[in-house]
Parts: sequence; structure tokens; C-alpha cells
Amino acid sequence: MHELRKDILIGRWVVVMTDHSKDPSYYFTDRRKPAPRIEPCPLCLQGNGLGTKEILAVKNPDDPNASVAVRVLANKDPLLQVDGDLSRRGVGMYDAMNGIGANEVIVESVEHNIEPEEIGNGHMAVLLDTYRQRLADLQKDTRFRYLLLFKNHGRAAGSAYDHPHSQIVATPITPKTVREELNGARTYFKFKERCIFCDILSQEMKTGTRIVAENIDFLAFVPFAPRSPFEIWILPRRHQHNYTDLKPEQTGSLASILTACLMKLKLILKDPPYNLVLHNSPNKLPRVDHWQTLEDDFHWHIELIPRLFRMDGFEWGSGLHILPTTPEDAAGFLRRA
Amino acid sequence: MHELRKDILIGRWVVVMTDHSKDPSYYFTDRRKPAPRIEPCPLCLQGNGLGTKEILAVKNPDDPNASVAVRVLANKDPLLQVDGDLSRRGVGMYDAMNGIGANEVIVESVEHNIEPEEIGNGHMAVLLDTYRQRLADLQKDTRFRYLLLFKNHGRAAGSAYDHPHSQIVATPITPKTVREELNGARTYFKFKERCIFCDILSQEMKTGTRIVAENIDFLAFVPFAPRSPFEIWILPRRHQHNYTDLKPEQTGSLASILTACLMKLKLILKDPPYNLVLHNSPNKLPRVDHWQTLEDDFHWHIELIPRLFRMDGFEWGSGLHILPTTPEDAAGFLRRA
Repeated sequence: MHELRKDILIGRWVVVMTDHSKDPSYYFTDRRKPAPRIEPCPLCLQGNGLGTKEILAVKNPDDPNASVAVRVLANKDPLLQVDGDLSRRGVGMYDAMNGIGANEVIVESVEHNIEPEEIGNGHMAVLLDTYRQRLADLQKDTRFRYLLLFKNHGRAAGSAYDHPHSQIVATPITPKTVREELNGARTYFKFKERCIFCDILSQEMKTGTRIVAENIDFLAFVPFAPRSPFEIWILPRRHQHNYTDLKPEQTGSLASILTACLMKLKLILKDPPYNLVLHNSPNKLPRVDHWQTLEDDFHWHIELIPRLFRMDGFEWGSGLHILPTTPEDAAGFLRRA
Repeated sequence: MHELRKDILIGRWVVVMTDHSKDPSYYFTDRRKPAPRIEPCPLCLQGNGLGTKEILAVKNPDDPNASVAVRVLANKDPLLQVDGDLSRRGVGMYDAMNGIGANEVIVESVEHNIEPEEIGNGHMAVLLDTYRQRLADLQKDTRFRYLLLFKNHGRAAGSAYDHPHSQIVATPITPKTVREELNGARTYFKFKERCIFCDILSQEMKTGTRIVAENIDFLAFVPFAPRSPFEIWILPRRHQHNYTDLKPEQTGSLASILTACLMKLKLILKDPPYNLVLHNSPNKLPRVDHWQTLEDDFHWHIELIPRLFRMDGFEWGSGLHILPTTPEDAAGFLRRA
């Protein structure tokens, strides 16, 4: 008999197919590299192929003779536009506002075919620190309620460029998925007076079977009730509210555990399409905002989600995700890789 | 500048790309029919190729000499199993229970290549009445909190068989997506003392630009802030709580508007993969259940969701969906088809 499991954070149930849990080969599909989407690649050019503003260019301090390692550009066709005001308004019984926000592209490497996890910890640490710098800067704009940092790897995960890159989208609203997580964390904090993520860390350390990798500062594990098989969460071991609080000594630890997790996913699932999403606390606003967290009730983390199949009507209509591989089996495959 | 719009029911914001709204050709991809997934097709056989229990076999009353038009079978590898008990339990700090439920396959037509909307209203009405009969029967089992009726059309929408079919999954929990909708409808009802769906119907009739089709009993429209471009909702015009309250005279009207909407989607988007999901009120339970609705605060409806692209990391991480075509443009294309 299969098992139903509840995500403790947002109350979502998932179906875990415990009866005949599948090994990674179940998910292998045609992963041949498609033809380049755009030639020449706009993220390859030394200058700036997007033709937009260069926001930041960062060298690798380990390699002082090197050219720029990571570059931040304004997006060419931004989803949300920086200039203008929100103009919240009613449309009949409904609500709308202008698409104000920011959309930055972080070019992770000057090389077209090299992902940061393939060229050593130093480069990955530069990338992770670039994330921190850009988030800290964008948090100053009080029009933005949330900064969503994410990476689409592979076409099936929504990637528009073949060149390794990630993105930051600043939104004038707190997105629904974020609100649910904040709400779950806050409800738990009110009830227990403890951070739910700190408690999840203790539980995972105690259980052990869902751990993927660990080091002095971070723990990586497959959650008890994830949305996707082989999903991995990376959390700082000690309570930390916002990614921008990341200390220099933590950056190296994060680079090494993230590199390890990405390499494990690549090896086990044959370079799967995946998304990386930073779940960070919302921006501090000068006025009171319903979704603003305390320092104690939210704990930033990274989610790595391999995109192995499309949702069907059942999952789309119910939000009840189906996991052909149990989280414990998935973690075992990843841990041993 | 693009527009942010809020779904009034569950508070989800979407980005509507008002600046360069795309026409249907933007979504054309390779739609060649793939080779049959399983030979011989288990849903084609006169007997029962699944080898499972036949629950119901319905003839078309318009055609008394015809063989069975619609057949309901137990699913072969059910996601949730009928026999057993729930055994709710704690697993460390988490929650789990047994995968108890029901999973029925509704074979919509004896012909492998003919969808019900292609062979006239009579057959579609038989199918819609079969849905009603099965839902009414399953509602009697007090272990089930919710019955999810859905159809996956096309592989990209999650279809496992090429033969036209739909499914009912009975779940022992109220799924997250359903809970959000019930919660939104109830909050609105408490505030206004009116059904939110009845108010949406009035608003859509007044606005007019999002209407796709209408008849005496039903209205079909593209919602103000949908999750997918070309998404269509079909609602009974007069307040009706549960699909099992569908009256015989309404069945014909529903068959004709659903047939029209499916034909329009096929024509405009070149036979796209889609999901059909019935949003019905939860089962009445003998004991008090937090999610149980009043008769007045929920209004059943059908959602048709063309599956035109995969979510990227931004949508997956934020729940903020992106619509390359405005709902008003989409409705215009569909209305004129």
C-alpha cells in the first residue's frame, strides 16, 4: 500500500509510492543536447550580447589574472519593468496593478559550456557572493516586497539561454508560494516558539535516512514530503534569517555542498533539467507589511528540484503530488553517488 | 508595461503580458501523434483489457441498438487502494497515513480514435451523466473526503492511455488546491453573504470580453487571472452546490457547451494537450469536517486547462504564473472559432 505524507511547512499532502519505489533509470528520457537556441549566444560575448546595462562584473579572487568570472546584466525583455509606479486599481470586482519590478540575469561563467560546479569551489563561491551582493542591493528598493532568485537548467526546466545563468526577479507582491511557507513557519513559531526549519534540521539529523550531504555549516537532505522525487533542500545548520546575512566563511561551505549536490544529481539522473530556487525571507519594508517575518520565524534555504516529468490533471487539479521514488531511496542513491 | 492581476478566489497573482500579447501560433509545437504506448490498447477490448472489475457500462439512449457507449473500470495500478484503513500516524515530527482511496477509469468511447465531443451531444451527455452517477455512488463512502474527476488529453498533459478516458480519484484528505478554493469562497461568503462564483458570473456577463460561449444553463469564459493562457471555466448560471445535483435537462446543455469549448480549443491551438478538472464541493461527512461547505458558499464548475508549456523555476518557486496572451485576446480567438 502506498503512503500519504504531509509537508509540515505548508500542509500539502503527497502520495509516496512505497510499494514499488523506482530507481533513477525510471526517469531517464532523451537528454541529447538540442541545437543552440540563439546564435551567437548573447551571454557569451565579452562585451554584453544582451545590449543591456551591466550591473556588476566580479573576478575570482583565487585567480587574480583571470578575466571576469561572473557578470550581472539587466534582462533584455524584462518580465517586470523597473521604472514607473504600481497604480493598484480595481477592475470590476477584480484587482490589478502595473508590472513593476526588476529582472537581472547573472551570467555564471564566461564559458558557454561550463557550469560553475564543474570548475571548482572558488568560482562557485564568487557566484554565491554575487547573489548576496545583488540581493542586498535590491532589498533597498522599498517598492519590492520579494526577491526571487532562481536558476533554470535545461529547456525542460524553462531555460531560455543555453549559457549557464541564473536570475533575480524583484516583485511588488509577496508571491503565493512564499506566503504559504511564511505562514506555515509563523504558525509553527507561534505554537512552539521555535523555528520550524531548526526543528526539521534536528529531525533529519536524528532520522539520517534522508541526508544527502553535510559539512560544518550546512545540511543537504531530501524532504519528508517533497513535490518532486530527488528534490534536495540545503539549509544553514545554525539559524539564519536572510541570505544576505551569509558570512564570508559560510560562503565556501555553501559552495562545496551545493557543488556536491549538483554533481550528484548530474551523475545519478544523467544531467537532468532542474530548477534551483532560493527561499529567502521577504524584504524589510518601512511600513508594516502583513507578510514581514520576525528574525526568528524564517530560515533561508536553497531548493534543488529536478524536473523529471510534467504534472498530470490529477496533480494540477489537486496539488497532491505523486512520488514514484520514496525520499529515503532517493537520498540513498544521492548519498552513495 | 505588463499587468499584474489577482485571482479573486485564492489570491494568486499572475503576470499578464499585455504589451505584446501572443496569438495562438506562438504555442504551436510538434503535435504529431506518437506511436501507441501499449499494444493492444487495454481500453479498446470489448471485454476489459485492464482485467479489472467493470463498475458500470452505459448505453446511449438515443441509439438503442448500440453497444456500450461509456464504460467505468477499476484502475489496474491504483494510486490509492480501496481496501484497508487509514492508520493516521506521526513519523518523528511529521504526519503520514495509508494510501486509501479509489481510482476509477471512465472509458469515454468504445472507439480508440474518437473523442466524445466528435460524435455528437448524445454521447457526451451519456458521459456527463456517468460522471454524476459515479460521483453520487462514491460520495456514500465516508472514508473519502474528496472526489477528483479529471481527464488528461495527450501525453504532455499526463495521459497514460491513448484511448479517450477520464478518471475519478477518491482521496481521504481534502487536497490543497481544493482547500484554497473552498477557503477563498467561504471567506468571500462570510464577508458579502453572496456566492463568489455567482458574483463572478455577473461580472463576466457585464464585462463580456472574456466570454467564450453561453447557453440557457451555462456560461464558459476565460478567467480574469488564469494559470494558463486559453484556460476556460464552465459554470452553471444558476447557483448549484454539487455536480451530483445536475438535473437531466441541464445535462444536454452542459454537453453542448463542453463540446463547443473542446472543439474551439482543438481548432485554435491544433489539438493541444489539455486537462479537464471538475471542481466540486467536498463530500458530506457524518462527523464535522473543517472543510465542509454550506450549500451557499460553493458552486461547482469545470476547468479546461491547455498545457502549452512547462513551468520554469520562477513559476515553480513563486506560484506567480506568466500569461503570454491576455485573457481578453484568448477569449476573442476562442469566441470567433
